[in-house]
Amino acid sequence: MLIIMKTDATEKQIQHIVQRVEAMGLRAHLSKGEERTIIGAIGDGRPIIKDQFLYLPGVDRIMPITRPFKLASREFSPQDSVFSLDGVEIGGDGVVIIAGPCSVENRSQLIETAHAVKEAGAHALRGGAYKPRTSPYSFQGLGEEGLEILAEARSETGLPIITEVMTTEQIPLICQYADVMQIGARNMQNYSLLHAVGESQHPALLKRGMMATIDELLMSAEYILSHGNRRVMLCERGIRTFENTTRNTTDINAIPVLKSMTHLPVILDPSHATGNWEYVTAIARAAIAAGADGLIVEVHPHPELALSDGGQSLKPERFAELVTQVKAVAQAIGRCVAPSKTHLLAGCVDV
Amino acid sequence: MLIIMKTDATEKQIQHIVQRVEAMGLRAHLSKGEERTIIGAIGDGRPIIKDQFLYLPGVDRIMPITRPFKLASREFSPQDSVFSLDGVEIGGDGVVIIAGPCSVENRSQLIETAHAVKEAGAHALRGGAYKPRTSPYSFQGLGEEGLEILAEARSETGLPIITEVMTTEQIPLICQYADVMQIGARNMQNYSLLHAVGESQHPALLKRGMMATIDELLMSAEYILSHGNRRVMLCERGIRTFENTTRNTTDINAIPVLKSMTHLPVILDPSHATGNWEYVTAIARAAIAAGADGLIVEVHPHPELALSDGGQSLKPERFAELVTQVKAVAQAIGRCVAPSKTHLLAGCVDV
Amino acid sequence: MLIIMKTDATEKQIQHIVQRVEAMGLRAHLSKGEERTIIGAIGDGRPIIKDQFLYLPGVDRIMPITRPFKLASREFSPQDSVFSLDGVEIGGDGVVIIAGPCSVENRSQLIETAHAVKEAGAHALRGGAYKPRTSPYSFQGLGEEGLEILAEARSETGLPIITEVMTTEQIPLICQYADVMQIGARNMQNYSLLHAVGESQHPALLKRGMMATIDELLMSAEYILSHGNRRVMLCERGIRTFENTTRNTTDINAIPVLKSMTHLPVILDPSHATGNWEYVTAIARAAIAAGADGLIVEVHPHPELALSDGGQSLKPERFAELVTQVKAVAQAIGRCVAPSKTHLLAGCVDV
Amino acid sequence: MLIIMKTDATEKQIQHIVQRVEAMGLRAHLSKGEERTIIGAIGDGRPIIKDQFLYLPGVDRIMPITRPFKLASREFSPQDSVFSLDGVEIGGDGVVIIAGPCSVENRSQLIETAHAVKEAGAHALRGGAYKPRTSPYSFQGLGEEGLEILAEARSETGLPIITEVMTTEQIPLICQYADVMQIGARNMQNYSLLHAVGESQHPALLKRGMMATIDELLMSAEYILSHGNRRVMLCERGIRTFENTTRNTTDINAIPVLKSMTHLPVILDPSHATGNWEYVTAIARAAIAAGADGLIVEVHPHPELALSDGGQSLKPERFAELVTQVKAVAQAIGRCVAPSKTHLLAGCVDV
Repeated sequence: MLIIMKTDATEKQIQHIVQRVEAMGLRAHLSKGEERTIIGAIGDGRPIIKDQFLYLPGVDRIMPITRPFKLASREFSPQDSVFSLDGVEIGGDGVVIIAGPCSVENRSQLIETAHAVKEAGAHALRGGAYKPRTSPYSFQGLGEEGLEILAEARSETGLPIITEVMTTEQIPLICQYADVMQIGARNMQNYSLLHAVGESQHPALLKRGMMATIDELLMSAEYILSHGNRRVMLCERGIRTFENTTRNTTDINAIPVLKSMTHLPVILDPSHATGNWEYVTAIARAAIAAGADGLIVEVHPHPELALSDGGQSLKPERFAELVTQVKAVAQAIGRCVAPSKTHLLAGCVDV
Repeated sequence: MLIIMKTDATEKQIQHIVQRVEAMGLRAHLSKGEERTIIGAIGDGRPIIKDQFLYLPGVDRIMPITRPFKLASREFSPQDSVFSLDGVEIGGDGVVIIAGPCSVENRSQLIETAHAVKEAGAHALRGGAYKPRTSPYSFQGLGEEGLEILAEARSETGLPIITEVMTTEQIPLICQYADVMQIGARNMQNYSLLHAVGESQHPALLKRGMMATIDELLMSAEYILSHGNRRVMLCERGIRTFENTTRNTTDINAIPVLKSMTHLPVILDPSHATGNWEYVTAIARAAIAAGADGLIVEVHPHPELALSDGGQSLKPERFAELVTQVKAVAQAIGRCVAPSKTHLLAGCVDV
Repeated sequence: MLIIMKTDATEKQIQHIVQRVEAMGLRAHLSKGEERTIIGAIGDGRPIIKDQFLYLPGVDRIMPITRPFKLASREFSPQDSVFSLDGVEIGGDGVVIIAGPCSVENRSQLIETAHAVKEAGAHALRGGAYKPRTSPYSFQGLGEEGLEILAEARSETGLPIITEVMTTEQIPLICQYADVMQIGARNMQNYSLLHAVGESQHPALLKRGMMATIDELLMSAEYILSHGNRRVMLCERGIRTFENTTRNTTDINAIPVLKSMTHLPVILDPSHATGNWEYVTAIARAAIAAGADGLIVEVHPHPELALSDGGQSLKPERFAELVTQVKAVAQAIGRCVAPSKTHLLAGCVDV
Repeated sequence: MLIIMKTDATEKQIQHIVQRVEAMGLRAHLSKGEERTIIGAIGDGRPIIKDQFLYLPGVDRIMPITRPFKLASREFSPQDSVFSLDGVEIGGDGVVIIAGPCSVENRSQLIETAHAVKEAGAHALRGGAYKPRTSPYSFQGLGEEGLEILAEARSETGLPIITEVMTTEQIPLICQYADVMQIGARNMQNYSLLHAVGESQHPALLKRGMMATIDELLMSAEYILSHGNRRVMLCERGIRTFENTTRNTTDINAIPVLKSMTHLPVILDPSHATGNWEYVTAIARAAIAAGADGLIVEVHPHPELALSDGGQSLKPERFAELVTQVKAVAQAIGRCVAPSKTHLLAGCVDV
């Protein structure tokens, strides 16, 4: 941490800061410039409360140097984190594709979708049983009944299941039915939930909040990691900006930035990131070209009847086309799409 | 809801939309322009899933007309909502000032602050027992012990208490100790929490998320209202923008906009909205000048030792100065600062 | 400037940076922390090209310490800059109110408005002759004819004139007709224009770009100041954010922040900052309460016929009410509204 | 245009609006919903001043339906606009790559870069002679000397030249030396400049402002097109958001959105869009995968000595690697990189 003094700070004010720094068990390092003095606080600055210095006389600004996260950082773990999801490697060389409807609406809708996405090459099935909805008057999900339908889809297709968790109370039930717990964008800074997901030790997909910086996303991952759960995927799903031709603005820069800053797998959700099925395939291709480790895509057999997110859902045949195009882009950059469950179940090497 | 057709939509596509609209129990109203046709869906559009239309052939865009919230709207309740908090009127003519530390750190810190803010004219005491912190390594609050200290401060000073709730499990305990539950900015779209706060029937202060639109803030209020809890205050606390000389950007426009759109009391938090004690008083004055019904201000006897938000906390003497200035501005626009607890308890009328 | 090295930077890389810093005539100051080394470059860093360091091996980030502007800074000139505009003091104790239509549309519209705003207490008349319009098909202003009408209004009312300049070629003509040249938000970083306005030595009102940081606004002011023109007013007129109930988001924080960072007068445009006449008066009051030195307000005798910005223009009677309210708020914070031209012309000292 | 009336608008107010609409030569079309009435104004709404209605009693909101641009729209010209630049097709099947330094610094720097980028496969050379710089104290470009050096590079390599124009006065000179005039992000709404570029009939590359919506970008293109110049390329170069790990946020969604909304060629500048050479190649690949028609990339032989934008410039060898990767991605999506000048001059067809 650096403490930038005001240009008119007195020697006494500077000495006061130095004493405060040393009283915290850190070394103080003075750098007197032409216009002002800068005091470096040397040692592990993470536990330091930076705001305390902002109030002291003579202080202009505080500049943190150390990133606030540790376990999530690339420095902590230079190797990519890779973990297996029912035989599918997440974060490895192969790109992984998760697909399915926004919400589980009924048995036939989900089972039909599950077969279709598996057929097209998906590695896992998404579907929400508990839905965070902007309006209290909208469909809020089927709850446990939805989880049961997801489990049935898994037993029919062999696809691992990913579904959203909204409260700490839901965790035991969801862990029982689903392979991955999704933490939604609006809950990215629901710290009680992050804490509990950390303790659950169950694989998690953490979506970036629409207002969250990359640093904050990594701090939320740190919550999960610091409670012992190392199987965390990060998901860019678009941020909120002034542009309104699309529902969100895909922060495609976040892909190479995250790959540089963290060892965790990074996937992209082109459905929420655009909010319009017409743009989903183009952005899916871009994500893989930028280096993403996977995609999570909304697919619905009848988008015009969907109870949520119909406008951004692909029909199965368009999703199959997306998979084909993504495969070509993955190969172009020297990667591949991971072997799909179809092939795994058919007896391929590594199940 | 209006369905804007593409310029090249066919008559058959238009008829298909009309049938869909009518099948939903609404009337379809066609308006054929020079370039394109617009179909109005007439009736209560709130339960309609707009996204379903986005996928139909020939459709360009969907434009909602009806605001998605109802109970929170000024149309629903043209009169301002006013409710009493232990004798202090919230949302009435008098401006209300809530003050106190970010976190309850220990007994003496809180009791000292409580006396100081009461002395200066505050109407209620704030203080966090459960703290949502960006870092898992930061001070997370004293929990129930913090609530007990808050209760003690109330019995010593007579000030009603406001404290943050982070999870549904904490609600019964917090209702027991505190007069108002605060829902923090990061939980503004934690719908499970909103639902439970609605059912608790306990007064609530709902903070705007740092990237939430005003419509979304009102939808979150609707969650609480629709579960039967009508005692809801809204709080503007700054939004996230590209500007970085301040922690957040105070959306001062939100004050007159909210007063026009909703009947709920609107208060402003100049501490979070600026992130720097030097700017707090200026923004507090601006809030009242713009028409806010109250303020919530961070005050700490020793900001340089505060465990959180020290940089944006006022010392008690500066807070007293803020109250004096706010009184003058309130009078200038034909309002007043509400009679304080000091005077209420002493039985005064005038102020 | 600080050069933050990567955690794995080698001693050789560090030495290379030190040599580069010294080769630039600065002193290098090393601070070795537990995780990384920081190199301070001591001396006047303004002419240094910071980007050059970003490319050198071992470098993680560059942190500028010195603000990039100098003449515009409060450190350079601790006293407020005050200048007289035809007898009205800008930047002094008295708050100044500039008012008038968005565009000069015709003689009668302008003369009628000029008399009305003078009557209500305005100190200067605004009106655009050259209009930057988003659409090439919109009314683009009357050009020189508009300037002539403005001059006539001045000779009739005694109000100084402020009008927008769009190109360097227009400067001589505008200097001839107007007392203040306005640089619009979309031209805030039109550096050729800023340069020429600096050389003109004519008073200027510089509007903040809708996506410009406060630092950038001050850098644009620096362009004008550094070419010798010291009579510059800054104008906050709302920034672009995700919020869409208002045309822009008034950055009210910018008022105290600018007053702290610069000595230049700071005024606020509540018309553009809200985009809706219903909110203009509330935001005008807030601006003065926050410490602004003045206002620039759009007034039109018949907003429903205005060729531009009708929706955010006040009718003269509402403007008169605004002036009354602003006076009360100015007094509440220990300021006043500057003596108006009416009074000045009626025999006051200095005209 | 739709005029949404307030829920409590009277019949008389509605009739007043109808009369106004008809007085403008449009047809008024009433749609009475359960809560409110909507009035459609049918006819060509582009010349209508929408703001005029906002002020009329009973009006709640105005909703434009027709996009404000016409010549730039896909409806106006369903076929992609393609034009030739010295033998290289812009906007055709082949992806085009423009490369070169941010600024022309001296003869050897530019000539060296020109040969290197041509060698690597670039189709055109970029380089700034007139530089818009945030600081008046920074290098402002070599001016006409820079243009002469660019002309020399063209005659040596055969590469067409693209350089920035900052003022209308510079246009004749730049047209003489350069093949394409670039309008920088900060001048995207410098309407006088757009007008003059339109009249010049010289090919133009229009960069999106960092604060500009896609609609505004297309309106600025409309300025150029409406003055008769049809050879316009659009350039996404990142927008400003709250995220600060990168200089800007690449709006990758803008690629498919623009390809859907307009017939003009769309290119992407990964250098400005990220601000960091480490991320440039990943974003260049993403741009092509998303459907961009080309790239403009900053290349400098010695970024650590560059007078501007060194931190985001690629060294020639890294640029060559970028071209290779971009070729692979282009092929993966069924396109190719356009035949380069090397091959064109040699008489080759396809490569």
